Amino acid sequence: MCRFGVLTASDRASSGDYDDLSGPAIVGFLEDAMTSPWEVVRRLVPDERDEIERVLAELVDSEGCSVVVTTGGTGPAPRDVTPEATEAVCERMLPGFGEQMRAISLRHVPTAVLSRQTAGIRGSSLILNLPGSPRSIREILDEIFAAVPYCVDLIGGPYITTDESVVDVFRPPHARRE
Amino acid sequence: MCRFGVLTASDRASSGDYDDLSGPAIVGFLEDAMTSPWEVVRRLVPDERDEIERVLAELVDSEGCSVVVTTGGTGPAPRDVTPEATEAVCERMLPGFGEQMRAISLRHVPTAVLSRQTAGIRGSSLILNLPGSPRSIREILDEIFAAVPYCVDLIGGPYITTDESVVDVFRPPHARRE
Amino acid sequence: MCRFGVLTASDRASSGDYDDLSGPAIVGFLEDAMTSPWEVVRRLVPDERDEIERVLAELVDSEGCSVVVTTGGTGPAPRDVTPEATEAVCERMLPGFGEQMRAISLRHVPTAVLSRQTAGIRGSSLILNLPGSPRSIREILDEIFAAVPYCVDLIGGPYITTDESVVDVFRPPHARRE
Repeated sequence: MCRFGVLTASDRASSGDYDDLSGPAIVGFLEDAMTSPWEVVRRLVPDERDEIERVLAELVDSEGCSVVVTTGGTGPAPRDVTPEATEAVCERMLPGFGEQMRAISLRHVPTAVLSRQTAGIRGSSLILNLPGSPRSIREILDEIFAAVPYCVDLIGGPYITTDESVVDVFRPPHARRE
Repeated sequence: MCRFGVLTASDRASSGDYDDLSGPAIVGFLEDAMTSPWEVVRRLVPDERDEIERVLAELVDSEGCSVVVTTGGTGPAPRDVTPEATEAVCERMLPGFGEQMRAISLRHVPTAVLSRQTAGIRGSSLILNLPGSPRSIREILDEIFAAVPYCVDLIGGPYITTDESVVDVFRPPHARRE
Repeated sequence: MCRFGVLTASDRASSGDYDDLSGPAIVGFLEDAMTSPWEVVRRLVPDERDEIERVLAELVDSEGCSVVVTTGGTGPAPRDVTPEATEAVCERMLPGFGEQMRAISLRHVPTAVLSRQTAGIRGSSLILNLPGSPRSIREILDEIFAAVPYCVDLIGGPYITTDESVVDVFRPPHARRE
């Protein structure tokens, strides 16, 4: 069983100004992609660094989530603090995810260069920042999720399998289980 | 009115050994691209980290520049210290600019991988490092400037417009003013 | 004369569980590529951060290696510590190498995003992290080595020349010697 944490950071969604469409976009991807057992723990918080850090730590340490995906708060505006919170709770960073996520989004909009998305490891969990837009979320997950199961293997999490028609997960031969 | 700071870091240009062609290349781009009101404040300093830091802070804090573009001092040589000075005066970094600027220059020369160019935010101003070569400056600005106006919007600066035939600025629909 | 350090970080190869194929892959590339005088100093250590740091410093400071290439220990697993050791012994980092090496490997496997490879400068030496797989090593070196000789020029090392049919080294005209 793999538990996923989905954290939406948004002042307006958390105050009820509008509905959170980003968290459901992440859950929708998991519903389409996952074939091994999984469940999701969702959280919605304002763009407050302390609050985001607290919830990220809780999703990993108390809820036992092997993968935590955030959405929102990755831009250059003063209230965007998700990358700072992510870096604060991680023991090591994986710079390739930020690079590749920006490269994917740059195919669609030049302002993707402004994103400060990052990813890192806390204990045996992977934390990944996604942008706020549901369409961008899907564009990114369709591509980068191919590397997530092997990452989870390497850091000591459960063995994840997916529907190849949605995302073509890669593992080196020695890491594959039939 | 948008004020631009243009800072040339060069031991040889600042000592009069040769003319600064890089600063004028940046101003030339702005002349071609800008359609909203703007003015420029230029500075020329040697490759001294303290001096670069002092002038960057002055351009933002005293001169009120919303965008500061540096040229020079981004390579691996011991006298190249512009990225260090930039990081020291910024409150947060935007890693996507360095990645994209290197990717653009890599299409032309493999040694673009050596550049340590970065970008960051100080207060409500964007600071961007460009390389020293006038041709590289133009290749990079033609492409990355598409994201600069929306970045300036997000950090609280003036609304910038450009000539679409020079640079096709992108803003999400909700951020556009007719 | 250019001295190259080649450091294999691997628990299993250093304990004799299997043969180190990665170090020889790097030496094989140098044999194919180099035309100016060179020699190599090889080391094999377990994935221990202190040990990797100590040997990196020794290869630069005592052995006089102008370029040190590591292999192994760049993934997300807890025993992967080569990037941390590299950053600890370097005075400045060159983020472009990590970006480009991941971009090269991403053409072949999506899990290249997981690599934390980096590069940096210690004194007048360049330290470069490569992955552990011999095939990846060759794919990366064939491409990125084009920028290594000019980097070594800029940081005060010897003038390196190569066989153009193996790697097409670039230097700006003013840096070329006939």
